[in-house]
Amino acid sequence: MKKLSRRLFLGNTTALSLAGFFGLMPAADKSKQNKKGDFVHHVYFWLKNPESAADKAKLIEGLTTLKKIKPIRLARIGEPASTNRDVIERGYQVSWLLFFDNLEDQEVYQKHPVHLKFVENYSNLWDKVIVYDSVDV
Amino acid sequence: MKKLSRRLFLGNTTALSLAGFFGLMPAADKSKQNKKGDFVHHVYFWLKNPESAADKAKLIEGLTTLKKIKPIRLARIGEPASTNRDVIERGYQVSWLLFFDNLEDQEVYQKHPVHLKFVENYSNLWDKVIVYDSVDV
Repeated sequence: MKKLSRRLFLGNTTALSLAGFFGLMPAADKSKQNKKGDFVHHVYFWLKNPESAADKAKLIEGLTTLKKIKPIRLARIGEPASTNRDVIERGYQVSWLLFFDNLEDQEVYQKHPVHLKFVENYSNLWDKVIVYDSVDV
Repeated sequence: MKKLSRRLFLGNTTALSLAGFFGLMPAADKSKQNKKGDFVHHVYFWLKNPESAADKAKLIEGLTTLKKIKPIRLARIGEPASTNRDVIERGYQVSWLLFFDNLEDQEVYQKHPVHLKFVENYSNLWDKVIVYDSVDV
């Protein structure tokens, strides 16, 4: 049922709407739940020219091209927030957060021609990337 | 309109359902969109005893208590995936990913009694945390 709900949720607006309409899917609660087995891919980019607004904009342009890759469930492009405590890493310039249904979908993304093209065209912009891949416990 | 849609989406199942039913809100597309101004708080924990399944379970228990804090929009507890490349950081044991509507909501969370209690009761378990706070570009 949980799995089915998610599929409806992401793939079928009408079914979702009907389920919601009849009180079967409290959206607010669902949004906080872990989705077992899902895959979180979070990449942080350190630019070669960290002060260059142009380079940052270019990287963001490149990441935006990736959003169309099919199995991506959620994609967010971020930059460091204004928070500043000892434990907070603020040295990166761009954050790239993706959700996938599973490891296999993430591999489809990695090998996708659009992704390979992105690496080819934009990797000259960054000095370092750190990737955190995690799965729900 | 964008802001309104989000509020409906998260807070009002019936309105969402009706909007979706009449084709106003394509859920599948929405799920991939950036939500301007939103706040992503991602914490990675390195345990003092990285091999201890008991300590990891205890930390997960503690994080689970935090999920009820009101302004949290999404909460996910993760562990490193099986992926293994040079750029992937796999040294941490637990990932804690939260979405908030904005910086202010994240501050409510930081100062919430349940959060302070969590730090008091569970911080002995970890050796290091790294926090990445980001906002959508």
